[in-house]
Amino acid sequence: MATSTTITVSGMTCGHCVASVKEEVGALPGVTSVDVDLESGRVTVDSEGPLSREQLDAAVAEAGYEIVA
Amino acid sequence: MATSTTITVSGMTCGHCVASVKEEVGALPGVTSVDVDLESGRVTVDSEGPLSREQLDAAVAEAGYEIVA
Repeated sequence: MATSTTITVSGMTCGHCVASVKEEVGALPGVTSVDVDLESGRVTVDSEGPLSREQLDAAVAEAGYEIVA
Repeated sequence: MATSTTITVSGMTCGHCVASVKEEVGALPGVTSVDVDLESGRVTVDSEGPLSREQLDAAVAEAGYEIVA
């Protein structure tokens, strides 16, 4: 069940921030790609199944950031 | 948390089938749009949050069809 989820993450300021978010979110089960737009904070996550807000919150927090929308 | 989920539904043969699927899937909580391609059976569901496979299975079954992928 192909799923694409879009979240907005605050606090990312450089490529290292982007890499951290990609690494943590990309490690969630079933995730096939993570695309981050640094300027807008928009993160698009493609996955094989639905991801819960809780899973995404935890992964983004692990990277050191926060989902704001 | 904007979510787009793509499923494939078997058995739809005409515009009435499409309308039934749109109605049932569109009634799931948080769903903002349902796009159906009759030829391929591809159904794209945009929603404000994640939808579970169980919710989608139930809605498609209520319309009289089945998710095959």
